[in-house]
Amino acid sequence: MAYGLLKGKKGIVFGALNDQSIAWKAALKAREEGAELVLTNTPVSIRLGTIDQLASQCGAIVVPADATSMEDLDTLVDKAMEQFGGQFDFVLHSVGMSPNIRKSRPYEDTNYDFFNKTLDISALSFHKLLNVLYRKDALKEWGSVVALTYIAAQRTFQGYNDMADAKALLESIARSFGAIYGKKRHVRVNTVSQSPTKTTAGSGIAGMEDMFTYADKMSPLGNASASDCADYIVTLFSDLTRHVTMQTLYHDGGFSSTGLTADAMEIFKKGM
Amino acid sequence: MAYGLLKGKKGIVFGALNDQSIAWKAALKAREEGAELVLTNTPVSIRLGTIDQLASQCGAIVVPADATSMEDLDTLVDKAMEQFGGQFDFVLHSVGMSPNIRKSRPYEDTNYDFFNKTLDISALSFHKLLNVLYRKDALKEWGSVVALTYIAAQRTFQGYNDMADAKALLESIARSFGAIYGKKRHVRVNTVSQSPTKTTAGSGIAGMEDMFTYADKMSPLGNASASDCADYIVTLFSDLTRHVTMQTLYHDGGFSSTGLTADAMEIFKKGM
Amino acid sequence: MAYGLLKGKKGIVFGALNDQSIAWKAALKAREEGAELVLTNTPVSIRLGTIDQLASQCGAIVVPADATSMEDLDTLVDKAMEQFGGQFDFVLHSVGMSPNIRKSRPYEDTNYDFFNKTLDISALSFHKLLNVLYRKDALKEWGSVVALTYIAAQRTFQGYNDMADAKALLESIARSFGAIYGKKRHVRVNTVSQSPTKTTAGSGIAGMEDMFTYADKMSPLGNASASDCADYIVTLFSDLTRHVTMQTLYHDGGFSSTGLTADAMEIFKKGM
Amino acid sequence: MAYGLLKGKKGIVFGALNDQSIAWKAALKAREEGAELVLTNTPVSIRLGTIDQLASQCGAIVVPADATSMEDLDTLVDKAMEQFGGQFDFVLHSVGMSPNIRKSRPYEDTNYDFFNKTLDISALSFHKLLNVLYRKDALKEWGSVVALTYIAAQRTFQGYNDMADAKALLESIARSFGAIYGKKRHVRVNTVSQSPTKTTAGSGIAGMEDMFTYADKMSPLGNASASDCADYIVTLFSDLTRHVTMQTLYHDGGFSSTGLTADAMEIFKKGM
Repeated sequence: MAYGLLKGKKGIVFGALNDQSIAWKAALKAREEGAELVLTNTPVSIRLGTIDQLASQCGAIVVPADATSMEDLDTLVDKAMEQFGGQFDFVLHSVGMSPNIRKSRPYEDTNYDFFNKTLDISALSFHKLLNVLYRKDALKEWGSVVALTYIAAQRTFQGYNDMADAKALLESIARSFGAIYGKKRHVRVNTVSQSPTKTTAGSGIAGMEDMFTYADKMSPLGNASASDCADYIVTLFSDLTRHVTMQTLYHDGGFSSTGLTADAMEIFKKGM
Repeated sequence: MAYGLLKGKKGIVFGALNDQSIAWKAALKAREEGAELVLTNTPVSIRLGTIDQLASQCGAIVVPADATSMEDLDTLVDKAMEQFGGQFDFVLHSVGMSPNIRKSRPYEDTNYDFFNKTLDISALSFHKLLNVLYRKDALKEWGSVVALTYIAAQRTFQGYNDMADAKALLESIARSFGAIYGKKRHVRVNTVSQSPTKTTAGSGIAGMEDMFTYADKMSPLGNASASDCADYIVTLFSDLTRHVTMQTLYHDGGFSSTGLTADAMEIFKKGM
Repeated sequence: MAYGLLKGKKGIVFGALNDQSIAWKAALKAREEGAELVLTNTPVSIRLGTIDQLASQCGAIVVPADATSMEDLDTLVDKAMEQFGGQFDFVLHSVGMSPNIRKSRPYEDTNYDFFNKTLDISALSFHKLLNVLYRKDALKEWGSVVALTYIAAQRTFQGYNDMADAKALLESIARSFGAIYGKKRHVRVNTVSQSPTKTTAGSGIAGMEDMFTYADKMSPLGNASASDCADYIVTLFSDLTRHVTMQTLYHDGGFSSTGLTADAMEIFKKGM
Repeated sequence: MAYGLLKGKKGIVFGALNDQSIAWKAALKAREEGAELVLTNTPVSIRLGTIDQLASQCGAIVVPADATSMEDLDTLVDKAMEQFGGQFDFVLHSVGMSPNIRKSRPYEDTNYDFFNKTLDISALSFHKLLNVLYRKDALKEWGSVVALTYIAAQRTFQGYNDMADAKALLESIARSFGAIYGKKRHVRVNTVSQSPTKTTAGSGIAGMEDMFTYADKMSPLGNASASDCADYIVTLFSDLTRHVTMQTLYHDGGFSSTGLTADAMEIFKKGM
């Protein structure tokens, strides 16, 4: 069902690799709700994935950009403004990667070049994006920026490695820049803390499948899917949530407020 | 602008006294978005306020109910189900009152009968409501229940008295019952932590006007109004937020994530 | 090892039933550290337990008191001041009980008389205690008041029932009264959120044994014991923690900041 | 008054510049409580400050080290182990600096080389320290590591710039490494979130004086001083707090749990 929630709105979506991606579903959903889109991803991800297919479904252009490069972000925002004929309304930041996880370097024996890369790609890229948007005054009054995060930013999860720290940094950047952008242009900046999701990115994390099941059993509503997340993001881009800002918003079926469920306990008891 | 977000949905709205009330705006907005409504308030509030006017604007019936009375809640839910022809989709709980505040009893010299009343009206009423809904299986799968809260539940505000404790209790009840109702029927239960709002209820709190200005200066987006809140509540009743549950959701222009703004500091410096 | 941390200090300890009780260990430890004590419990608990044995070990008197009765608290504080020769330094509130849990009434089908009792015994009793202390100016400048809580106040645990809500209320009361007592007399008020502990009180909760193991596996340091808790409480009564107030202090081996450990995951996987 | 709380314990203290430093007071206090110390700071800070005076007061050696250099940390820990004759018990990390703040670069127009330096000095240095300690198995079972943080990690403060994000990252690293070190060696890792403090470091932040007064008026107990903080840190190094880990511990006179005090409101009203 479509409501026209984003009718007349325009925005950039980062990070749609393939049809498993949250960003992919968010782009489709935003389009369904009436938005005009510009898609972006790194050149490598564009090659590896199928973003062109999404672009044609959405009637969108694709602008390659490395989210850690100010130059690329500059070009991206310029092209988006050109495409949109001026200021636009929203941005989705779904960008994250940990070379330490990829190379199976344990957290306690980290490679600091990798660690810095994790922070740069997964957190500082968000600051850079906001910086460029702010400097170019690219977003309309009451615009909305959303980044995806995970609860490991607040509680430690076996195997989530330096991504946990990157997400904590990301959430802090959302608050810090949100205060400034909110005051200046009424732009809101939030992060959505999503259930573990079976995406290509997620599958890089060791034991992801088990973590997925665990989270599902520990969430009264079960895990939220990528497509549920897309629905939620659309509300955050709409005009109905204008005064929500600088928040970490848990979209996780209740996981974050749960200490123990009967279901999880039963499995746990069997395992002992 | 209306989107039909609640088309085909039905729900009960508590606590609309007059056109200043958040509940009043929420009812109107829900109606605009396509919902069918039953309105309720205490007999006294119905007499003092103008709910009938709202009812006629919304094409709704009014069922008087004291939210602390299981009997009244029983009748209310029965009548709503009769009116709606069965199960319904959402409920807004906007109920709160502190006799200690009304009679200016300071927190450190509380009247415990009053304190119990504050808890019963402002927090236990929410448990009773959920209890009746749950027992009668009154809500559809993926239904949504929202209660209004305030950040004093988490941080102490001069003058907010025992309402702070009541709101902490309310937020806990939302988590506790949310876990059960979520598991059983996928019903979600959340609280919205709203900016100080110039309602008739709010005006009972000493120094409300100053608190309002203070909060406004300490919120990067400024205070959220009653009508902004209505917009936000509508998203929480919609099908787009199905996996958000057991959360305290801050709808406050960023106040909750702010330690100090330049604006507030300037005023503070002048005052020293 | 004893350090004389509480040398010259005097205080009241609530809730020592038998030598499993946290309060029992805290009293012993405080005594070891040089404190002079008054012990209290309800008449029933005094009969059922062995507090007299503790009293003789500590050289303390026992004053029976129902912590929900202002009259009893009045007498208790008067007797303590008489015993101590004036103002004293600290109080430990270790009081909690849920008739709903005792009678196995599920949360969703609560008995509201029971619920009110849970709140009165487990949370309002703390307000009443602070009220009497404050009114009689019974505590010295920079005195310290501690109440025991549990993380169910913030996240839902299967089986913890209305005690979760009572603990949330208790934590809020600590903040609310802490602000007032801190300003007036520099008295600090905190709650300690302790690991599940094998006490007689704890054993009333369904599935306590399993919850205990679960928490242990989910805590990087393992569960904190009653006697660890006693150690920690003593630091909070000492002069070294004078500026910590209105806090929920997690004494739980890291449980509260943990999302998932490798140990718990292994058990969980076996159980699936 | 000294209790011998740290009798027989040995540890490293980072960051004592001069007698205004929290680290300076913490070293002195630890010494008073019986600890044997190794002091460290960067070569520049050693030149600019008066750490040798502290060293002679404490009977400690000074080992220069840049906390961002793995090599320096390696040497430091080796020398400490040599000095102590093996494993030791605690470390205080009081390290932080933002070139952006120093050069008055606003957050929204940051210099990313500076930003990375802020993160490296103020947060990653903590990971590096823990990494070296862990790899060398330098800490005894139940050892204790503390880093200093500030509430800007959780709420935005005008002027705190990228240090806010660095502190959020620091707090996350404490959780992430705390989980690993706790499991392996029962070492606990915490951060202390201290009131604004009039140190040489603190004075670099724009409007520090006003922020200091503001925090003081917004804290029911007033601001905690450097020497109060030293007292508190000593309890965290003692054997009495062994099960507290992965926590952000607010030592701030109640500021963190306060929304508004009567004192602050009065000043605010005058200023309007």
